[in-house]
Amino acid sequence: MIIDIHGHYTTAPKALETWRNRQIAGIKDPAQMPSAAELHISDDELRESIETNQLRLMRERGLDLTIFSPRASFMAHHIGDFEVSSTWAAICNELCYRVSQLFPDNFVPAAMLPQSPGVDPATCIPELVKCVEQYGNVAINLNPDPSGGHWTSPPLSDRQWYPIYEKMVEYDIPAMIHVSTSCNACFHTTGAHYLNADTTAFMQCLTSDLFRDFPTLRFVIPHGGGAVPYHWGRFRGLAQEMKKPLLKDHLLNNVFFDTCVYHQPGIDLLTRVMPVDNILFASEMIGAVRGIDPETGHYFDDTKRYIEAAHIDPTDRYKIYEGNARRVYPRLDANLKKKGL
Amino acid sequence: MIIDIHGHYTTAPKALETWRNRQIAGIKDPAQMPSAAELHISDDELRESIETNQLRLMRERGLDLTIFSPRASFMAHHIGDFEVSSTWAAICNELCYRVSQLFPDNFVPAAMLPQSPGVDPATCIPELVKCVEQYGNVAINLNPDPSGGHWTSPPLSDRQWYPIYEKMVEYDIPAMIHVSTSCNACFHTTGAHYLNADTTAFMQCLTSDLFRDFPTLRFVIPHGGGAVPYHWGRFRGLAQEMKKPLLKDHLLNNVFFDTCVYHQPGIDLLTRVMPVDNILFASEMIGAVRGIDPETGHYFDDTKRYIEAAHIDPTDRYKIYEGNARRVYPRLDANLKKKGL
Repeated sequence: MIIDIHGHYTTAPKALETWRNRQIAGIKDPAQMPSAAELHISDDELRESIETNQLRLMRERGLDLTIFSPRASFMAHHIGDFEVSSTWAAICNELCYRVSQLFPDNFVPAAMLPQSPGVDPATCIPELVKCVEQYGNVAINLNPDPSGGHWTSPPLSDRQWYPIYEKMVEYDIPAMIHVSTSCNACFHTTGAHYLNADTTAFMQCLTSDLFRDFPTLRFVIPHGGGAVPYHWGRFRGLAQEMKKPLLKDHLLNNVFFDTCVYHQPGIDLLTRVMPVDNILFASEMIGAVRGIDPETGHYFDDTKRYIEAAHIDPTDRYKIYEGNARRVYPRLDANLKKKGL
Repeated sequence: MIIDIHGHYTTAPKALETWRNRQIAGIKDPAQMPSAAELHISDDELRESIETNQLRLMRERGLDLTIFSPRASFMAHHIGDFEVSSTWAAICNELCYRVSQLFPDNFVPAAMLPQSPGVDPATCIPELVKCVEQYGNVAINLNPDPSGGHWTSPPLSDRQWYPIYEKMVEYDIPAMIHVSTSCNACFHTTGAHYLNADTTAFMQCLTSDLFRDFPTLRFVIPHGGGAVPYHWGRFRGLAQEMKKPLLKDHLLNNVFFDTCVYHQPGIDLLTRVMPVDNILFASEMIGAVRGIDPETGHYFDDTKRYIEAAHIDPTDRYKIYEGNARRVYPRLDANLKKKGL
């Protein structure tokens, strides 16, 4: 089985974006604020948006299952207050849940949180609980910078985040550390802010002793870990200067990297540098890079091709495709086992 | 000849830091503000700080010449106002100049600029002119984020930077795009902020048409280009979505990467992905990562070892060690030719 642990609902019916635009307008003019009940998207519309997009490509590429969360760039936690984020997160999570009900063999939901800059992350817990207990979510996306590129929250090692971590440990679910749209003109969203956040989050873990407080907490760093594997020597050296344990002991029981790296040399580096147990298959399809690579004639984000071509043995390939996902996402594993898979 | 294009004066005599601390205290209490003339560092002190550190390691490693600029993390443009930065930059640049006079065969200076958050970059031009015309500087370091991790300046493609670029073009000098200390708790300086800035600067170039306005402008992106080579497929794909030319035409006549990547797999990726004409040898020694890699028994930052072991032919190695530096830093080339080198 091939599990893609990083998919977003980037192809939701247009009505979702229209509703969101009305919500944003409603921040300035409360008379325009729509209620959640005003959004109508039928099962047929959901089905079509998935069948013609993600599911079509999954079939073409031979992927079986996607861990599916709301569109990352649309989370935009910097817009409005907690109330705005809360309504928006509930809507987006419900849609991913409905997709998972319509395609139970192909999509398993992961939740966005109703984060808001300057608001205590503990306020996200009711949505998290609902998504796990009622919607069967197997993971969350945690935004380390709800300000959207101004980085006004404390690092992930700060105790303000601990209520989230306590709930994650209780449910045994991992968090993908994933920012949203940048509203800072310095940072291009998918070309700079995403990769920077990956590197930043890793370094926040490295400099802290977070995983001493939460030995079973698990973070997935997307986009191949940002700059981390390419600079693995730098990170090992910095940890050594700080008298931290070896990174394999200090971080690699808790931190994992996905394979959203869109060319063969990048995947070759990732699989060469990182222990195979820390690599999880993903493509973030349909996402930031949708075109065909003129150098290969294949989609940039068809990451399965790179894994197939990487110099790794079948046991390792199994771990990357399936085994590690079952270990890092135990609720997914339990679901699959219930189905006899 | 082996030219290291990225060295900072990280080992300056203690008196420099003491003076700087007095200057910082003087921001709040003008009575404590020292004059530049109060800093006394003798030639012998300079000589010793270099001979026992950078020059010793250069000899051990077989490096001939270093392009030498003030300590990056000490630039701290976010401290004080333009006046503070201006005095500090003048002092630091003078020290690097003196080092270059004491060791003319081994060190060539590059200038820091007296940048200050919110202040027009054009104010840096007198220092730049002095450093080139009187001190023989062959390059500048340009900080894309003088705020120190708050990213409050416009992107490098903004016209506010153009006066600097016009001067660079006039003098035919490149800029290394290099941030300084992060004062944002989210970003570790050398583990996150430096690498993020590299990626960010590259993406600012990619999304703009800066090099159409300045076809001969040259940027060196340090630390192996941050996350860029590892994610080269992503960047090619994003450029394609934006209908930009192929990156080799859009950016690679103007953007270059150094080899400050502290493990073999990273250098192997860099040399595999990037055209050899865009790679310049560097170690940033003595810098962020000073220890010995327990996996190899050699210094993490002894990047020459990685270049020696990379699968490249001698012509390419010559370009990385010397040829490209002479092309990207024409004033260095002219100096060397004057000496018959």
